[in-house]
Amino acid sequence: MPSTGRLGELQSRLEQHRLDSFLITHLPNVRYLCGFTGSAGVLCVTQRDAIFFTDGRYAEQAGVEVQGAKITIRKGKSGMASAIEWLLKRDSLHRVGIEPSRMNVAERDVIARSLGRGRKTVNAPLIVEQMRTVKSSGEIAKIRAACELGVRLFDNLMQEIRPGVPETEIAGQLEFAARKAGVDEMAFPTIIAGGKRSALPHGRASQAAIPSQGFVVCDFGVILCGYCSDMTRTLHVGRPPAESRRVYESVREAQQAGLEAVRPGKTVGEVDSAARKVLYNKGLGRFFTHSTGHGLGLEIHEGPRVAAGQQEVLRPGMVITVEPGVYLPGRWGVRIEDTVVVTQDGGEILTKCPKDLLPV
Amino acid sequence: MPSTGRLGELQSRLEQHRLDSFLITHLPNVRYLCGFTGSAGVLCVTQRDAIFFTDGRYAEQAGVEVQGAKITIRKGKSGMASAIEWLLKRDSLHRVGIEPSRMNVAERDVIARSLGRGRKTVNAPLIVEQMRTVKSSGEIAKIRAACELGVRLFDNLMQEIRPGVPETEIAGQLEFAARKAGVDEMAFPTIIAGGKRSALPHGRASQAAIPSQGFVVCDFGVILCGYCSDMTRTLHVGRPPAESRRVYESVREAQQAGLEAVRPGKTVGEVDSAARKVLYNKGLGRFFTHSTGHGLGLEIHEGPRVAAGQQEVLRPGMVITVEPGVYLPGRWGVRIEDTVVVTQDGGEILTKCPKDLLPV
Repeated sequence: MPSTGRLGELQSRLEQHRLDSFLITHLPNVRYLCGFTGSAGVLCVTQRDAIFFTDGRYAEQAGVEVQGAKITIRKGKSGMASAIEWLLKRDSLHRVGIEPSRMNVAERDVIARSLGRGRKTVNAPLIVEQMRTVKSSGEIAKIRAACELGVRLFDNLMQEIRPGVPETEIAGQLEFAARKAGVDEMAFPTIIAGGKRSALPHGRASQAAIPSQGFVVCDFGVILCGYCSDMTRTLHVGRPPAESRRVYESVREAQQAGLEAVRPGKTVGEVDSAARKVLYNKGLGRFFTHSTGHGLGLEIHEGPRVAAGQQEVLRPGMVITVEPGVYLPGRWGVRIEDTVVVTQDGGEILTKCPKDLLPV
Repeated sequence: MPSTGRLGELQSRLEQHRLDSFLITHLPNVRYLCGFTGSAGVLCVTQRDAIFFTDGRYAEQAGVEVQGAKITIRKGKSGMASAIEWLLKRDSLHRVGIEPSRMNVAERDVIARSLGRGRKTVNAPLIVEQMRTVKSSGEIAKIRAACELGVRLFDNLMQEIRPGVPETEIAGQLEFAARKAGVDEMAFPTIIAGGKRSALPHGRASQAAIPSQGFVVCDFGVILCGYCSDMTRTLHVGRPPAESRRVYESVREAQQAGLEAVRPGKTVGEVDSAARKVLYNKGLGRFFTHSTGHGLGLEIHEGPRVAAGQQEVLRPGMVITVEPGVYLPGRWGVRIEDTVVVTQDGGEILTKCPKDLLPV
């Protein structure tokens, strides 16, 4: 019986991709489609059926969590082994979709061998990832809660940033406070990058001490009830010199331009170019060395990519980051980032937190 | 020119596997072979050459870190694109090894297409992983330092465990202290599982509070200078009832038997069966639902697998865990784990920390 909701949506798309069945193994996709949050299981979707295969360790958890799919556990077998056994009993299922960017070569080879003659694995396109780019109101509420928590954590963190304190200690304080507030885990390794290290776009917290003068880039995210937040603020220890102030204001202006370009019907490439143009006009374009942003949700990096030339069109319910930066090699850097949800007529910032350049 | 050391060792093994070249993409393998610790790069090894390909972001880092391999960076190209360009210029390199359990299907397909006719990708066996199972004295020193730090952190943690405190808060304290002590990151999500949750072999810290009476399983690891530690201790809040005490002592006895079986020339399967037999003899065998241990080093799970029937022979320099457990579903569980290095004539525990059942 065809399913409703997300599973039904996926089933309705299988035929156009000539898939008789689709083995979904990427755990965020499994979770999105049927609710299972454990770490081992395969969701097998056909045009009529949706069956979640796992092993005995997850019997209890699957029973509580899985919605819309039948649960099958075969004693002593992995979820994948059970799924293949099931497929082999169904003569009509020849073309077995797999997720090629999520499955390793060894695993695919084992599956292809087990399926034998007359059946074959087919590289499926990113159907579920595409569905996931537009969030439901329930998902947006969760991302909003994660972002609001992120802002509260950041407010408290500012008091900890003092010259001489190691970056890892600041990151540790933040993460401990996040733990106490009930986060599942951090969304990615916390970036606290002071002084020269602020010139590294991905300067995760190190043993280096916060300098007595200079920028500190703070970029972090939490996962709360499965959904991510992401924000960056750049602080300055001591009074910022004129050049630092000028660059900071340029990044802020670029970020504002990016935010204002967020609107249904615009492409993600237009958001990127709105931010990038500001920095080019100020002679800083070549120091903005990464793309402007990314989607986020169950994963910290998901569709759409907010990058130069990308044609994907923004739709209400998409959630993206806008995070231009300027990095002067060997000297210092600045990045400002918000998480934004696309609304009916624009974008709403979910990480509401001041951006004035205040010395700490 | 053939290399010396680890790279030379790998080069000497390529011919027997009929590999003209080997594209190493799994980052712990890249780090092991040439020292690069960044997050993007490909090491291409032939019988004569070793070249590390990365992109502009890592130019400085590669220059500092990479040993024994030439560094090649092509402007605007990824490491993999540069590696393929290099391969295409060398007519003699037909069989291009990849790491099938580390590379996804989509990436392999792109490589195979780029290589074109006359060249093909070949699934290489786990040559580097096999080399990595026996640690050098330098590696053992790093694992020892990580384990010693783990023990110090655990000593301090014991004071924090009190009824009513959420598991996540205890995990957070531990992780904050680890951060301050300079760890790179935790080796895996910290497990603090109290009361009924101690029956879950992988009960990562949750919002649940430590109960006023019962077991608390604490399983954690740090990564220090790239190398992992791993240890588990099970505490009891309040006075343990006779049954709890009996099961605890059985697990302890099983773990001791496993430890005593660690000796060069024994198989890992014998270590597993030594521990398992104790629990079977006490009628607890069916509650020991996982394997006895695993190797660790640059990764928290690496070879050898210490599991039933495994034939791999222990050699001096291997580092493994010995971690039997008993899990009574819906009630409680106990696990005791040490990290052990295989010496010339036995095993040395690196996580030296008492195992008496003391009430907290």
